[in-house]
Amino acid sequence: MQSAFSIIEGGGVTSPKGYRASALLAGIKPSRKRDDMALIVSERPAAAAGLFTTNRIVAAPVRLCQRHLSDGATARAIIINAGNANACTGAQGMADAEKTASILAENLKIPREQVLVCSTGTIGIPLPMEKIETAIPKLVATVRQDAGVLVANAIMTTDTVPKHCAVSLDIDGRNVTIGGMAKGAGMIEPHMATMLAFVTTDASIDPLSLRLALKTAVDNSFNRITIDGDQSTNDTILCIANGVAGNRTLSPDHPQWNSFCTALSHIAQDLAFRIVRDGEGATKFVAVTVQGALSDDDAEKAARTISRSLLVKTSWFGGDPNWGRVMDAVGYSGAEVQENHVEIRYNNLVAVSQGRAASGTALRDLEHILKLKEFTLIVDLHLGSCSCTIYTCDCSEAYVRINSEYMT
Amino acid sequence: MQSAFSIIEGGGVTSPKGYRASALLAGIKPSRKRDDMALIVSERPAAAAGLFTTNRIVAAPVRLCQRHLSDGATARAIIINAGNANACTGAQGMADAEKTASILAENLKIPREQVLVCSTGTIGIPLPMEKIETAIPKLVATVRQDAGVLVANAIMTTDTVPKHCAVSLDIDGRNVTIGGMAKGAGMIEPHMATMLAFVTTDASIDPLSLRLALKTAVDNSFNRITIDGDQSTNDTILCIANGVAGNRTLSPDHPQWNSFCTALSHIAQDLAFRIVRDGEGATKFVAVTVQGALSDDDAEKAARTISRSLLVKTSWFGGDPNWGRVMDAVGYSGAEVQENHVEIRYNNLVAVSQGRAASGTALRDLEHILKLKEFTLIVDLHLGSCSCTIYTCDCSEAYVRINSEYMT
Repeated sequence: MQSAFSIIEGGGVTSPKGYRASALLAGIKPSRKRDDMALIVSERPAAAAGLFTTNRIVAAPVRLCQRHLSDGATARAIIINAGNANACTGAQGMADAEKTASILAENLKIPREQVLVCSTGTIGIPLPMEKIETAIPKLVATVRQDAGVLVANAIMTTDTVPKHCAVSLDIDGRNVTIGGMAKGAGMIEPHMATMLAFVTTDASIDPLSLRLALKTAVDNSFNRITIDGDQSTNDTILCIANGVAGNRTLSPDHPQWNSFCTALSHIAQDLAFRIVRDGEGATKFVAVTVQGALSDDDAEKAARTISRSLLVKTSWFGGDPNWGRVMDAVGYSGAEVQENHVEIRYNNLVAVSQGRAASGTALRDLEHILKLKEFTLIVDLHLGSCSCTIYTCDCSEAYVRINSEYMT
Repeated sequence: MQSAFSIIEGGGVTSPKGYRASALLAGIKPSRKRDDMALIVSERPAAAAGLFTTNRIVAAPVRLCQRHLSDGATARAIIINAGNANACTGAQGMADAEKTASILAENLKIPREQVLVCSTGTIGIPLPMEKIETAIPKLVATVRQDAGVLVANAIMTTDTVPKHCAVSLDIDGRNVTIGGMAKGAGMIEPHMATMLAFVTTDASIDPLSLRLALKTAVDNSFNRITIDGDQSTNDTILCIANGVAGNRTLSPDHPQWNSFCTALSHIAQDLAFRIVRDGEGATKFVAVTVQGALSDDDAEKAARTISRSLLVKTSWFGGDPNWGRVMDAVGYSGAEVQENHVEIRYNNLVAVSQGRAASGTALRDLEHILKLKEFTLIVDLHLGSCSCTIYTCDCSEAYVRINSEYMT
């Protein structure tokens, strides 16, 4: 398939026209030595859509964004802090998120409802508001067009690399650009969104259509990844579209609707895959496909169970083609399975046929694949025609080390 | 409550009257240097009951035991091998399990249906039957009464300590003894039984009553533990009762039925806790109680989700009172929860009150508890009156090391 868009190398959230950004070290978490606050500003009100965690414990900034993003809403600015999640902080946490929005709105001279607030970091500690109050005027004063990489760095927590990308495409003869950035390396198993991801575009699109396009893009990207099976209290993806490109306003009736959705899905998948590749302690990227399932639900259950299994993930880390652990996970996943129908392939090399070790496949050939940095695992249940792919990583000793040292 | 039974120090499956056992190194898995086969023989046909994995992928020996344990069945012998699970081995695996039972039956001159067969170890590799055939006559020739610890050692895989215990109690003026042993350290989240556990008793009890007593004991022990959330293909608990003690046959009508059930539950819980304490790489034993839930199901969902969360388990390993991760897990568990009602206590010290960090509790006091080898974690949802306790362990770098090196 010919690509309907082109990739902008090194692009990010300020690649689309009409966006500026800034970052600085506010000292949110005393031990942190790099930028911990970021601001994205659109030069005009932008159609805005968001998807959020389905965790029942929801961080204050998530609740604020949900309120500001009632249908048809527009946004002018997104402010993000790392180092503190502002989750499980009670009424004070909500007041702090609102105060952040108010101060930024005052500084930008815009309505408070056009500000979106995101936080990521440790749970349960009140935000240091005096540091945030000091930081906001400085952030506003320093916004610039080439700050896409700077802000992608500022939102990192245990991430080892910044995650940003951008594409451009032609719509109505106008050059439309979509840029994005994300953070996340642990507590990753999004159900509606992921840790934090931000997508900007200069396309003209109405908010409801934007939400529709975003939902589709997220279902096939952030909602298909898992690192450790722990779903965050702060998962958020925000997408804003300021219309500076000047195309005819996009909606499902527009002849290039599919091109826009394809490009947006590319951005979402690119960011989601960067999160998995940077999974805490991860050394391998694995695409787990379950096919031949009786239902979509069965395929998803089996693929998620394999992708979450600590025994499967540690054997990948060891480069061990221990398919017995994959069979075991499929068996307790709740999916309909008949042992003597199951086929398992690594990079299309058959390891298991009719539920048993495939005769004619040498263990050393499987070992060779398991030592690669990326491979595919296909489990064919040979019962029906439904399938699901989950993108995940291995689990190393470094994951445990990172997560046993995080807070104290 | 005064104990209705007394503990037999160092006791095991041959503590009850009328049982003998033996073990030897058959060489099932070439790299293994210690005993890998065990035999338990009852001098007379014993009422027998078993509970098995609910995994849809079921090992051949599990299917054989299920067939031999049709209601009202009796058993004379249990033969166990470590190093090979005989799972995902197709028709050959079933034939091998049947052949093992036949050869042992011939050697003991008993009906084949009175033999129970168990396997544990690597999945997907055919059993080395010639080694098993050579071993069986030797096992039969060497059975003795004092081999309880010997067989507990022979069934170990990644276990670091043998797990065995026994209690005695008085029923109808007769001395009744119950002994048990178990193995398991990884792939532990039983749903109907656990890895492998064996309980013998010289009590007289009919098979249906034995099954009832066993079911209750297992529901409150093996079905309440988790190490890594992976449910095995081979989970089995077998209980045999040979009646040598000479009590009036036990059933729910017997005046001492509750005493017997309490003693049996003690054995099951003792073995289950030994499995958690010996969890692969585990350094801490944690009893996680969720109370104040709206339903039993909610309490269990929340307790299991906390106990499975890799982020929670690694923070325990680090001695880190990171209660935010506990809140997060409760939030995505699916249980009904209201953030501002939640209370969290470690060894009864309040860490979280009304969903926020408890004022007046010093972080260093929480840290002190988290550094203990055993502690309790209570999450009170303050919504209802239902509760559930799950027994679990932390997750260390050693867990990852053990499981990335296991097969190859």
